Amino acid sequence: MSNKEATIFGIYPVQEAVLSKTVIDKIYIQKGIINSTIDSITKELESKDTSINFVPIEKLNRLTRGNHQGIVAITSPISFHSLERIVESTIEQKEKPLFLILDQISDVRNFGAIIRTAECTGVDAIIIQKKGGAPITGDTVKTSAGAIFNLPICKVDHIKDAIFYLQASGIETIAATEKTETSIYQTDFNKPLAIIMGSEGKGVSKSILNLVDHKAALPLKGETNSLNVSVACGAFLYEIIRQRSL
Amino acid sequence: MSNKEATIFGIYPVQEAVLSKTVIDKIYIQKGIINSTIDSITKELESKDTSINFVPIEKLNRLTRGNHQGIVAITSPISFHSLERIVESTIEQKEKPLFLILDQISDVRNFGAIIRTAECTGVDAIIIQKKGGAPITGDTVKTSAGAIFNLPICKVDHIKDAIFYLQASGIETIAATEKTETSIYQTDFNKPLAIIMGSEGKGVSKSILNLVDHKAALPLKGETNSLNVSVACGAFLYEIIRQRSL
Repeated sequence: MSNKEATIFGIYPVQEAVLSKTVIDKIYIQKGIINSTIDSITKELESKDTSINFVPIEKLNRLTRGNHQGIVAITSPISFHSLERIVESTIEQKEKPLFLILDQISDVRNFGAIIRTAECTGVDAIIIQKKGGAPITGDTVKTSAGAIFNLPICKVDHIKDAIFYLQASGIETIAATEKTETSIYQTDFNKPLAIIMGSEGKGVSKSILNLVDHKAALPLKGETNSLNVSVACGAFLYEIIRQRSL
Repeated sequence: MSNKEATIFGIYPVQEAVLSKTVIDKIYIQKGIINSTIDSITKELESKDTSINFVPIEKLNRLTRGNHQGIVAITSPISFHSLERIVESTIEQKEKPLFLILDQISDVRNFGAIIRTAECTGVDAIIIQKKGGAPITGDTVKTSAGAIFNLPICKVDHIKDAIFYLQASGIETIAATEKTETSIYQTDFNKPLAIIMGSEGKGVSKSILNLVDHKAALPLKGETNSLNVSVACGAFLYEIIRQRSL
């Protein structure tokens, strides 16, 4: 597998990539296009981890200068894991699994730094949503310092469903958010856990905050009202390490 | 003061900027150039916080397409503070000052994220060296989320001398480094402190590791043998917050 993502464009090249089982991270299809091969590609990818996006032709023209014929695929440098399989096997092997859910982290460098930190702190798997988050590019691989190859990443249709599934599996979900009075130092991390980190701009989305078992905040002592998300994630994960080492 | 750095080039424009007390972060002068005005500019800036660099003409040509006449100045969006004054006034006001020393952080975004984290965690001042570190640019301001305007930054000629000065002022120095068996959880942060974070590639330099009072490491649980420096800095500073809140 290559360390870099690649852009594949044109109906037949994309079809061939799909048939050859290349992992496709995102696919962009021209809105309103009528083509039976594109339809079959879309159908084939629906059951996979690919984010399928119908976009105006201008978006495709920005993605490539080549003759894209209404379809552009971005391959992934890694393959993804099934959430169910990873959760099952982790629960079997470990007393206190630790999962990290990323709710729409959009910056590639933050995403890479988080993967790196997660691998350094013994996170068992990262869970991301198919749509909306940062793509996994060569820059993600680079800023992860290669950690992306040592940590399973699960792509799910909806973060919500992943939370329900984890909760049903006996894993407590804790959202990192400023919208609580409870600090991380008052939170018990000494149990099977999934931590949810939110997007750079908005934090963890409201609908997810309503679902989680607990919320925990990092104390803020200055004028600035939030931390960079990869820094916040690191402070959370290190508090977990500390509590679990006592 | 502007939120962005500016590039000033040409002998007289640079001279005017210096005379008007514009804060100049870095100045680049063509190696071997003979010009009395440039000499007087250099002399004037030597006593200030400006990093003075003698470089080949190609470097100047990359900095600007204008007629630079052998001299280019990069202004700073902030002004700098005197280490001595900041340390004295902090010691007077606070029982447990907390300083953060950056030893050659070279990435502008890491630098910005660290400033943001430092402001969020109540650091009293950041100390950087005149030469070698990332410049303070519009990107630094942006990635700091504006925190750079709420936290004094001191520029010193040599980190070493700053460490001697802090130690003489009763402040213990602790380097963040993997080159120790002592973890942050075994380290007492409940006293007047200066934390030293090292560069992205090399960590805290050897000569500084030899000077500091203590070394402390973040435990690493995975295959990746280091964290992003802004993430590591956050984990350190939050452990200090935790210990000081007990």
